[in-house]
Amino acid sequence: MQASHPQKSHERDIKEYFSSVRAYTESLCKPLEIEDYIPQPIVDVSPAKWHIAHTTWFFEEMILKQFVPNYRVFDPDFAFLFNSYYNSIGERTPRAQRGAMSRPTVKRVFEYRKYIDDKMLEFLSGPSVSASVTDLVILGLNHEQQHQELLLTDLKYTFSLNPLLPVYRENFAPIEIVDSEAEGFVETEAGVYEVGYDGDGFCFDNELSRHRVFLEDNRIEKRLITNREFVEFIEDGGYRNANLWHSDGWEWVNTDSIDKPLYWIERDGEPFNYTFAGLRKLSLDAPVAHVSFYEAAAFAEWKEMRLPTEFEWEAASDKFDWGLRWEWTNSAYLPYPGCNRSPGAVGEYNGKFMINQMVLRGASVITPPGHSRNTYRNFFSPHLRWQYTGIRLAK
Amino acid sequence: MQASHPQKSHERDIKEYFSSVRAYTESLCKPLEIEDYIPQPIVDVSPAKWHIAHTTWFFEEMILKQFVPNYRVFDPDFAFLFNSYYNSIGERTPRAQRGAMSRPTVKRVFEYRKYIDDKMLEFLSGPSVSASVTDLVILGLNHEQQHQELLLTDLKYTFSLNPLLPVYRENFAPIEIVDSEAEGFVETEAGVYEVGYDGDGFCFDNELSRHRVFLEDNRIEKRLITNREFVEFIEDGGYRNANLWHSDGWEWVNTDSIDKPLYWIERDGEPFNYTFAGLRKLSLDAPVAHVSFYEAAAFAEWKEMRLPTEFEWEAASDKFDWGLRWEWTNSAYLPYPGCNRSPGAVGEYNGKFMINQMVLRGASVITPPGHSRNTYRNFFSPHLRWQYTGIRLAK
Amino acid sequence: MQASHPQKSHERDIKEYFSSVRAYTESLCKPLEIEDYIPQPIVDVSPAKWHIAHTTWFFEEMILKQFVPNYRVFDPDFAFLFNSYYNSIGERTPRAQRGAMSRPTVKRVFEYRKYIDDKMLEFLSGPSVSASVTDLVILGLNHEQQHQELLLTDLKYTFSLNPLLPVYRENFAPIEIVDSEAEGFVETEAGVYEVGYDGDGFCFDNELSRHRVFLEDNRIEKRLITNREFVEFIEDGGYRNANLWHSDGWEWVNTDSIDKPLYWIERDGEPFNYTFAGLRKLSLDAPVAHVSFYEAAAFAEWKEMRLPTEFEWEAASDKFDWGLRWEWTNSAYLPYPGCNRSPGAVGEYNGKFMINQMVLRGASVITPPGHSRNTYRNFFSPHLRWQYTGIRLAK
Amino acid sequence: MQASHPQKSHERDIKEYFSSVRAYTESLCKPLEIEDYIPQPIVDVSPAKWHIAHTTWFFEEMILKQFVPNYRVFDPDFAFLFNSYYNSIGERTPRAQRGAMSRPTVKRVFEYRKYIDDKMLEFLSGPSVSASVTDLVILGLNHEQQHQELLLTDLKYTFSLNPLLPVYRENFAPIEIVDSEAEGFVETEAGVYEVGYDGDGFCFDNELSRHRVFLEDNRIEKRLITNREFVEFIEDGGYRNANLWHSDGWEWVNTDSIDKPLYWIERDGEPFNYTFAGLRKLSLDAPVAHVSFYEAAAFAEWKEMRLPTEFEWEAASDKFDWGLRWEWTNSAYLPYPGCNRSPGAVGEYNGKFMINQMVLRGASVITPPGHSRNTYRNFFSPHLRWQYTGIRLAK
Repeated sequence: MQASHPQKSHERDIKEYFSSVRAYTESLCKPLEIEDYIPQPIVDVSPAKWHIAHTTWFFEEMILKQFVPNYRVFDPDFAFLFNSYYNSIGERTPRAQRGAMSRPTVKRVFEYRKYIDDKMLEFLSGPSVSASVTDLVILGLNHEQQHQELLLTDLKYTFSLNPLLPVYRENFAPIEIVDSEAEGFVETEAGVYEVGYDGDGFCFDNELSRHRVFLEDNRIEKRLITNREFVEFIEDGGYRNANLWHSDGWEWVNTDSIDKPLYWIERDGEPFNYTFAGLRKLSLDAPVAHVSFYEAAAFAEWKEMRLPTEFEWEAASDKFDWGLRWEWTNSAYLPYPGCNRSPGAVGEYNGKFMINQMVLRGASVITPPGHSRNTYRNFFSPHLRWQYTGIRLAK
Repeated sequence: MQASHPQKSHERDIKEYFSSVRAYTESLCKPLEIEDYIPQPIVDVSPAKWHIAHTTWFFEEMILKQFVPNYRVFDPDFAFLFNSYYNSIGERTPRAQRGAMSRPTVKRVFEYRKYIDDKMLEFLSGPSVSASVTDLVILGLNHEQQHQELLLTDLKYTFSLNPLLPVYRENFAPIEIVDSEAEGFVETEAGVYEVGYDGDGFCFDNELSRHRVFLEDNRIEKRLITNREFVEFIEDGGYRNANLWHSDGWEWVNTDSIDKPLYWIERDGEPFNYTFAGLRKLSLDAPVAHVSFYEAAAFAEWKEMRLPTEFEWEAASDKFDWGLRWEWTNSAYLPYPGCNRSPGAVGEYNGKFMINQMVLRGASVITPPGHSRNTYRNFFSPHLRWQYTGIRLAK
Repeated sequence: MQASHPQKSHERDIKEYFSSVRAYTESLCKPLEIEDYIPQPIVDVSPAKWHIAHTTWFFEEMILKQFVPNYRVFDPDFAFLFNSYYNSIGERTPRAQRGAMSRPTVKRVFEYRKYIDDKMLEFLSGPSVSASVTDLVILGLNHEQQHQELLLTDLKYTFSLNPLLPVYRENFAPIEIVDSEAEGFVETEAGVYEVGYDGDGFCFDNELSRHRVFLEDNRIEKRLITNREFVEFIEDGGYRNANLWHSDGWEWVNTDSIDKPLYWIERDGEPFNYTFAGLRKLSLDAPVAHVSFYEAAAFAEWKEMRLPTEFEWEAASDKFDWGLRWEWTNSAYLPYPGCNRSPGAVGEYNGKFMINQMVLRGASVITPPGHSRNTYRNFFSPHLRWQYTGIRLAK
Repeated sequence: MQASHPQKSHERDIKEYFSSVRAYTESLCKPLEIEDYIPQPIVDVSPAKWHIAHTTWFFEEMILKQFVPNYRVFDPDFAFLFNSYYNSIGERTPRAQRGAMSRPTVKRVFEYRKYIDDKMLEFLSGPSVSASVTDLVILGLNHEQQHQELLLTDLKYTFSLNPLLPVYRENFAPIEIVDSEAEGFVETEAGVYEVGYDGDGFCFDNELSRHRVFLEDNRIEKRLITNREFVEFIEDGGYRNANLWHSDGWEWVNTDSIDKPLYWIERDGEPFNYTFAGLRKLSLDAPVAHVSFYEAAAFAEWKEMRLPTEFEWEAASDKFDWGLRWEWTNSAYLPYPGCNRSPGAVGEYNGKFMINQMVLRGASVITPPGHSRNTYRNFFSPHLRWQYTGIRLAK
């Protein structure tokens, strides 16, 4: 997920909104020891310290340095250290070496947050906050919300490699095992539908340029696939039947010896699941999570169904409940017609990731409150599993 | 490219059609030495011997073994040796080891071709050739035509690694350097368009299920991008400007040290091009060839334009000339709505490659005669360049 | 470096020795922030936390659990977490995932140290400490001393990847830039020499089995090669002259784009050196450090000399000063004749590393006091550079 | 194996010697089809065409071009095409792409051989053949003999990947299954021994500089380890017991899923062996072949014995039969004291391979007649198995 620019100004009071999003990030850090902020076990997974610094960097770089006269930077090194992929801002730390950065300390990064928060609130109280600057602040807050979810999923991945299987929060398990009770299908009739964002609130660039698509008749299941159904797939030899898999998926299954969703662990012959609350018995009625696109597609093939396209999903989304899992669609992540790039650094990445990725729609149990829309386009490589990804089928 | 089943029977006399396609394959082999049939320099590039055997295998496996009573196989080993990816037929030679198969000899493989040709012509003269069997034969011939093109591009790739830069045929250079003279744009108005095959002739499965799509207003250039324009891109630092590239494309450029199209070679400061006729001066007016999707997309970004989608291309294709290059589109290779899998081995691969690939439309200068349609969906991974791939831009 | 068993009991008071070695480890940790204990940037480099826990684990596992009746383990998980390669003790944490282990916390690991120290001192005050147990304690202390050096070199490597280039200790630079002033050669006459340890003190297994070797006439330089000489090698194109390099070395130079020793950094055209005291101007008179065996051998070839064998080195070692750098020899790390494996876990690894490694003799500026002998056999893969490795030439 | 320069002139008539070695190479090619000359399935394995051309290239490059006035080269491209690693001669074909070189044809390469043979015999009949030139010719012939063995082992490897398991020659099986009947040990007493070549005949550079070594008492088995004993090792879990293996060997076993010697194939629960005569039942009394150093060392550990050093082997070699297998020693391939590099291209590689390789002593069943000595130092990387490598144990 990458941040983009907002279109319409937000109606909530911007200072209050700013404070609440920033505080939520810090609340997520409460259970962490200093040590937990550091590891980067694989290149896709960033350290918690990086998330809390990088989201702060956004406000210093995009707002304070640009709009506050004589702004004094907190630390000139941080511009370099906590840049992610904005080449136009200057050089940046190689992504794979974020985990080697023991310094600056966590304490200093929290001081950075405090400094920037103070400066931002002072700035937002001032007279010079135009609508376009407010939009930029709102973009920064949505960017931070994306990192709130990544902070959690990255932490879960890191913890899962520790033989101690640490508990993040005892009361975080329920969110992973909520049941899905809906039944039946949602039907959409063939016709022209409008897709993409057109409201007054915030959205990312990739949702913009509302446009028309033609959909043929289709039916989408109201409920998500459960762990119980996924166990059946496994027991029926799903991971060993080449015919169910994409060619690349079959190679992935064999090269990485994949035979179950991420975080499923067997203990004494019983299926368990590593959760934020530690190791728990696998809840068979919960929607399956942490599956790759390849697994989702193979499961659909096994059921003699298919994944919906992102537009079928969007057109039908008012007619079913969503928000427990990021739902893999069978749509590649590609630009909408008429999509334009924002000028400068904010728009820099537009389109950079629009290859070799599949779209996920919906939201997950750990998506921050107020950060989901039925036009939201999330996207990941088809083999990745560390997000709360799930499966909804279509015909 | 993978073969699929035909829909309508072909009107031409099937025996004549069979003989002419089979003979064309052999005519392509005329300039080859026995040694040329063997190498497989990279896993994507198959030996010429494999192409001529595998296309023959199709007729033995799918027609003769199925429909000729008491058919006596030419050699029982060949069912295994020359299977490509049809897991339901049985085990097969690992793709990466096709180049280690010096035996059976080339001579024996041509005997195999002769044996199968005789049996096929005998069979096609008989009374038991139903329409559905004829369709299967036509499928086999279209499958062979796909391999005719691959035989040439694979051979070109292999020859290009030889310091001698061998000549395939002296008179093959012109086809690579034909000029593109058209000017201006083709305009398509917003609206619902039908796409996919609906004629009476042959098509592949992936073109089927003609369906409606909604296109917004768009304009496509009548001509292909030339080598001259691509030289300008290079001279303007196109390969060194990260902002023009997809993130994955930028990694590809840097990891593989890419700085020009495949087969471009500098000699004494002058640009040359390895062609089927050997090393030739780069023809600046010819359409650029042998570029990856990443290069095509970066070039489009540099021109402040974009690649068309496969449906924009199809809807406009009657209004411009095509057929010199396989044209990269900005569409991922995904199934059409309502697309169904054929039963058994013939349909086995359906959908297997519908991930991580981009669609190319059109045809190339070496596509066999009678093997192109404006609904044809070719597809390759975004980094591959050994086909005659080119660039047409849209707005 | 791996620990081995001691032969003769140590004369010093064992409790005092124990306390002093354990305290030295902790003194090395003084400048560290909690965050510094965590990163494992490459698989060869372990986190500081791992070093301080693993050295403690040795005493719990090899002494307390074995010899203290009713010993109560500090934490049963630690046996698994901090095992290195002793398969006979049980499963262990995969080496590559040491850096993902944020828990147990650093604080808890220091509590573990304290607990074990107390139990050890209590045990060592008791009556049941046989000579063989004392030997095992001394082995554990020598093992810890090896990890003291690794703790520092691993930390230096991690810090070097941080764009901030952190300072470990301001006063640590001098040790890296001490001058070598000796001149001339040490000559050894052809004859039979005895090599290997035969004293009364501690040594590792791999030094044992003192035996005879025949040496031909040889001459070894009294001084180490300096940075100044290495700069000359570079300026003479040493890194670009294939003839100077081993075939594997040449591949390493090209694949990893090696063109100077590790930690050399150019700033504004001037050569700098990352040291424990941060970035410092390169001291031309200091002995070169952080070179691979390949670089050492290529340098020798350039000088039309060679590296000494480990036995030439040992036979001559009384006649020159050593101890600033681990000196690459041209001897592969192989067993001495008559070398026997110790029974059980302590002897488990014997010989496990005796392939694909070259012997280094001497010691380095950060080798702990009292931990060097002229029979000591250190060893590393020929491409590794993160130790204080240097060059001494022979003829 | 790399060629080196000869020391003393050979007494045999040089023309006859030349003709007989050249003819032997061609006799080995008799069973080959043209196709068999082409494949290079892995980088270590060269095409047969390359062997017959490269050995010819040696005589053109090192003799004819240097010593024959107005010598007219056969084809100027061949200097480049068939150079192996002599950087000082000029650029060369990348080793990994030898298998892509379908041209020049096999016929043309045999014309090249004929041309060079004629020119050489003409030259050798002339007056200007000094002793040093004769030495160079003898070097070229020994170089060709090394390639005779490689031609066979490379071909066997390539054939083994072909599902047809082609037969090279029906009567070649016996050589692989000859029994070893000796019993007991050869004892060597501690003392100074001379090793290295000192005869009047030919030897390679790496055998030179006869020198003294001190050997401790040792005992070497008179016979080689048989397939029967190796089956026992396997059945006792040898491949699954980490304690028997070097650390690098254990990684190799697991990464490459090694569980038996190369070319062992199970059919219907019975052990077979791919031989030059095709698939044959495993002969239990034959000496084991095609094992890596890692397997040899693990086997020795399992027997509670060890591999001899190359000097123990050489000192005892008159007292046992050898020549069936290249016997892994526990000596790394390193230079002899006083070893000097020959000037120019012939000496170029001297020492280039003296890292990460282990010495093999003896010869194999397919070593050409007259090409073995007890001072011969063969060497390979510890994981390689495609040579006729075997095991002899020591204590």
